[in-house]
Formats: sequence, C-alpha cells, structure tokens
Amino acid sequence: MARHRYLVAYDISDPVRLRRVAKTVEDYGERIQYSVFLCDLSRADLAELQWRLNRVITTSADHVLFVDLGIPSQVTFEFLGHRRPLPPTGARVV
Amino acid sequence: MARHRYLVAYDISDPVRLRRVAKTVEDYGERIQYSVFLCDLSRADLAELQWRLNRVITTSADHVLFVDLGIPSQVTFEFLGHRRPLPPTGARVV
Repeated sequence: MARHRYLVAYDISDPVRLRRVAKTVEDYGERIQYSVFLCDLSRADLAELQWRLNRVITTSADHVLFVDLGIPSQVTFEFLGHRRPLPPTGARVV
Repeated sequence: MARHRYLVAYDISDPVRLRRVAKTVEDYGERIQYSVFLCDLSRADLAELQWRLNRVITTSADHVLFVDLGIPSQVTFEFLGHRRPLPPTGARVV
C-alpha cells in the first residue's frame, strides 16, 4: 500500500488534550514545529490515527488538519529561520 | 504567472514578533489554524512574503515553514473537530 506524506497540524485548546494529541501523533511521524508533524501514512494508518485522535479531542473546541502532500519524495518545503531536521526526503532552505 | 497554494506555518517564540508575523501573512492568505495559513501565491508573491518575514523574525529562535501544495484545486484536506472555512477550493471533513 503506497504511503503518502501528510502534514498534520492541530489547534488544541486544553493543555492535557494537547499533550495527548502530541503523544498520539508522535506514534506516526516527526514533529517539525510545535504543533505540526509530518507523517508518512498508508490510508489504513491515516484512518487509525484519525480514529485515535477522535477519542482524544473535543470536536467543538479542537481542530486537527491533515494535508495530503502526496508521495514523500515529491514534497517541496522551504524554511525561514531555525528549523528541525525533516524526515529522510529533503527540503530547500531559503 | 500560475499561483500555487502554500501552507505557511510558524513557530515564533516572542509575542510581539508573533503578532507581526501573523499580520504580515494575513496580507497574503487566510488563517486556518492559530499559526497556519493558506496562501495562493505566485513565485514573486512568495519571494516578497519571505523577504518581509525575514525582516520580522529572529532566525535563531523563530521558524517559518512553507509547503508548496501545488495548484489550489488539487489540494486534499481532511479535518477533525471544529474548523474554519477554507479559501474557495474545498476540503473533505472526516
């Protein structure tokens, strides 16, 4: 099953839920910003992650975004400032 | 000049710079999360935005990420929880 690279970003209004969401997403990918992760996922992985997150968040207050970036090697990132290393396929620093 | 949709996300460690970065990015797109924007930009717009942000951030402490999502209509978003409307081309709510 082909894996796509997903950018997962979240706005979680409660500190306890925030930690639990971060811990959950850490199981699936790498943190590139405080509340932004990159996850290389099959559709089954994505469904599992969403199922697990749905049990943690409060849907009326919290928000999780999944952006399908396609095949990992084809994704173009640019950065300004101090940054964390990306998962194996690279990025261009501006 | 073809416009691509960029996801712009930032980690800014100082509240004053944070406000200035948000104000700057607001000139180029729409906020979809607290520190995540979608901006439909030509390469010239992107260069201008990066130039303006470089004058605001502290590169040793702050971090701005630009992800080229390609042509706006081809981008796939999924959301969990409460969300803000996206710019005109749509998203799929899970």
